[in-house]
Amino acid sequence: MSVRLGLNDFIACCGSTKFAEQMVADGPFATYDEAVVAARNIWFNKVDVHGWLEAFAAHPQIGQNPSSVAHKSSTSAQLHLQFSFFLSLWSKGEQSAALATATDSTLQELYEWNSQYKQKFGFVFLICASGRSTPEILTELKRRFSNRPIVELEIASQEQIKITELRLHKLFTNTSIQDQKS
Amino acid sequence: MSVRLGLNDFIACCGSTKFAEQMVADGPFATYDEAVVAARNIWFNKVDVHGWLEAFAAHPQIGQNPSSVAHKSSTSAQLHLQFSFFLSLWSKGEQSAALATATDSTLQELYEWNSQYKQKFGFVFLICASGRSTPEILTELKRRFSNRPIVELEIASQEQIKITELRLHKLFTNTSIQDQKS
Repeated sequence: MSVRLGLNDFIACCGSTKFAEQMVADGPFATYDEAVVAARNIWFNKVDVHGWLEAFAAHPQIGQNPSSVAHKSSTSAQLHLQFSFFLSLWSKGEQSAALATATDSTLQELYEWNSQYKQKFGFVFLICASGRSTPEILTELKRRFSNRPIVELEIASQEQIKITELRLHKLFTNTSIQDQKS
Repeated sequence: MSVRLGLNDFIACCGSTKFAEQMVADGPFATYDEAVVAARNIWFNKVDVHGWLEAFAAHPQIGQNPSSVAHKSSTSAQLHLQFSFFLSLWSKGEQSAALATATDSTLQELYEWNSQYKQKFGFVFLICASGRSTPEILTELKRRFSNRPIVELEIASQEQIKITELRLHKLFTNTSIQDQKS
């Protein structure tokens, strides 16, 4: 039995059009493991730097919406809501550690460092937040900020594939449940 | 005595706006060596991946002009003219080895591999051609074609800085001659 996944399913896992098209071309995949092998090969060998940047740009950033968070006076509720959105794109249930440890001051600091990060590197800070607390995410952001752009590009690509794998896993799990029900 | 170089001088060395602006901000430079130290620091630490792609896109490609070279039936004269243009952006006198060894068949092959390269990596094939024959350039292009995109991006950035250094050297030499004359 193969899991039937379409272009939009793969786009939801990784926002590179080339990635999603190639996953459709290489599929269908009988198991999650088969899909991951294909995904890693496509992401690292076939998607070029423009495709990587396209995938990175598909991620929301804390403070991304200028109408709601344009400056330091953002309300606590706005920051928490945006942080929840930032995390919610990742696999359900993986965001509890970060949400439980998010305070106004750490979120405000995260927002400010995110802006500096994007200004230096040209894309949003990407991290697979699974199991990480908000202070841990902030520490990692500060540490990575001193990297050279080419180094950070490669780290971001590694984080992106981890996120993609979590999302693929969720897709395969959901599809399996639906298959069992039908 | 410092050499007076402006934004357009640095843009001619490396087509990244950020690079040129930062060189102006860091200058003036008393010697070529000082300029190279600054250039390397800016290129690898301050210019992000968008700036790298901007610089790569400033290079002509063999077969770039669709009105003159759109398919395999390009005339020998057209290919030679374009190859000369491709090389002529680099330091004067550095192109003799490549030009002397360019035949119709190697240029045609170079054109075809260039197209495939751009399709795979999303930017033109960059090589500091100084002292290299056309068959050597072609061999290097074929060898590098099998690289992963992130590896090739880093190699292209290394070739770009070599080209930039040659151009800076030319600028400093010309400016020195003018200074001596004045």
